[in-house]
Amino acid sequence: MSVLNAAARAVIDSGRLAHLVTVNPDGSPQVSIVWVGFDGEEIVSGHMADRQKLRNVRRDSRVVLSIETGEVNSMGLGEYLVITGHGRVTEGDAAGLLQRLAHVYLGPDVTFPPGTDHPPGLILRITAEHVGGVGPWATD
Amino acid sequence: MSVLNAAARAVIDSGRLAHLVTVNPDGSPQVSIVWVGFDGEEIVSGHMADRQKLRNVRRDSRVVLSIETGEVNSMGLGEYLVITGHGRVTEGDAAGLLQRLAHVYLGPDVTFPPGTDHPPGLILRITAEHVGGVGPWATD
Repeated sequence: MSVLNAAARAVIDSGRLAHLVTVNPDGSPQVSIVWVGFDGEEIVSGHMADRQKLRNVRRDSRVVLSIETGEVNSMGLGEYLVITGHGRVTEGDAAGLLQRLAHVYLGPDVTFPPGTDHPPGLILRITAEHVGGVGPWATD
Repeated sequence: MSVLNAAARAVIDSGRLAHLVTVNPDGSPQVSIVWVGFDGEEIVSGHMADRQKLRNVRRDSRVVLSIETGEVNSMGLGEYLVITGHGRVTEGDAAGLLQRLAHVYLGPDVTFPPGTDHPPGLILRITAEHVGGVGPWATD
C-alpha cells in the first residue's frame, strides 16, 4: 500500500514544481526543481541529459521531494508536501514524459521539449516511503 | 563580498517560502519550509522550539535553501534560487524575528507568533557560499 493518500497524490498531479534533493559525493545536499507526475506507483521526472542529480541517485538512491501546494492552513501558513524515498534512473523516452508533463505544467497546447529528433534521455523514478510537511497527508 | 547579487537578495526579501535542506545523522537529506529574511549578510529563520533541522545544523552545518520566485523565463520555465552555504544556530529572540518576517509573509497587521510570553527560541543563520537555480543570479 502506498504511503501517499489521495491528497498527496493530487499534489503530485497538480502541476506544482517539485524541489528535488539528492546527495552529492561529499555528502552535501543538491537541489534542483523538476516537473513530476506518476508512472504507476512511482513518481517520475524526465531529463534530456545526464546531470549531477542523476549521477547522485545512481550512487546514493536517497531522495526528497518538497512541493508547495499554494494552499494555506488555518493559521495562514503555507501547506507543503515532503516525500522521502529512494530513486532509480532508467534510460529512454524522457521526451515523451516531458511532453506529457508539459501539458500539465505549461498548457494543453505546448510542445516541449522544442523540436524533434530528441535523444533518449533519462527518467528518474522515485518510490515514496515517508510523507511529511504541512497538510492533510503528514504522518509526523 | 557576498555571492548574492541584488536579484538574489530581492528574492530572499520577497516573502517567498524557502525550502531548507539539512543533513540527517544518517546522511539523508531533511527538508522543511521556513520564512527567511536578512540579518546583516546572514539569511535568518526563526524557530520557537528546537527541531531536527536545527540539531542537524549543529552537527553538520551544510545547508541549502531553494526558493521559487513565481517568475518564468523565456522558455516558460519557473525561475528559482538555490543557495548553498553553512548555517549556525543562536539562541534568543526568535519571536521578534518571526514577527518581523510575519509582516512580510502574512501581512503588515498580523501578530505572529500568537500570544505573548514566548520562549527565547532559536535563530538559524546561514552564510551563502554558492548561488544556483534558474534566474539572473545563477553562476553555474
